This record gives sequence, structure tokens and C-alpha cells, in this order.
Amino acid sequence: MVKERFGQRIKKLRNAKGISQEKFALSIDMDRTYYASVENGKRNISINNIEKIANGLGITLEELFKGI
Amino acid sequence: MVKERFGQRIKKLRNAKGISQEKFALSIDMDRTYYASVENGKRNISINNIEKIANGLGITLEELFKGI
Repeated sequence: MVKERFGQRIKKLRNAKGISQEKFALSIDMDRTYYASVENGKRNISINNIEKIANGLGITLEELFKGI
Repeated sequence: MVKERFGQRIKKLRNAKGISQEKFALSIDMDRTYYASVENGKRNISINNIEKIANGLGITLEELFKGI
């Protein structure tokens, strides 16, 4: 499912930056338990929050969805 | 805002296929008034529905977000 593929993708990108879930969630002003559940593929995340994550990772939405 | 850019993008892609809003919404089993409001940039659409639209357009999520 797309929620799971999205979660795996952002986890990989966050890890590549060497930042903890907690630190990353804080940097984008997102609740850390909510963010963790997104990485775990549990959330039907909205486009506004998807954009927040792309901005936090410093990439475009197109890049964020690469391979998903 | 990203909701508006997304709406403009899907409208452009749908028009390029020469399909009406109504016909497209029907093809992806989405309420047509809801779909119209997404094209109008009014909805904080979720990833599940974003995927439905990509599938309906016959493109990847990466392609869907190109330039957004």
C-alpha cells in the first residue's frame, strides 16, 4: 500500500541525513508520535503534511515520491 | 499553497487526456463534487486519494508531482 511505501521512503531519506525521528519531527513542527506512525505506514497523510516533510528533508515533492 | 498547485496539476493532466471531470471522477470511483473541489485547490487530499488519481491518469506518483 502507498502509505507503507511512503513511510519506508521518508525513513530512508531521514536516515540518509543522519537525523533521529524525534529531531526531524521537531524540525518540521510535527508531533513525534504522529511522525513515527507515518514512517510506520499507518497514516493516510494529507498533502499539507507531505509538503512539510519534503521541506524538512530539503527536497521537492517529485523527489520525495521517486520510486514510490 | 500545495493544495492549489496540486489542483492545477491534475486539471492540466486530466485535460491533456481530454476527459471531463465527471467522467474522470467516475473512472476512479471518487465523488465528482469532491474531485472538483480537489482540482479547485480546496482539499487537503490524503495520500490514498492522491494515489487513486495517479492510477486514473495512468502515471506514477513521481510524475504526478513533477513541477509541483
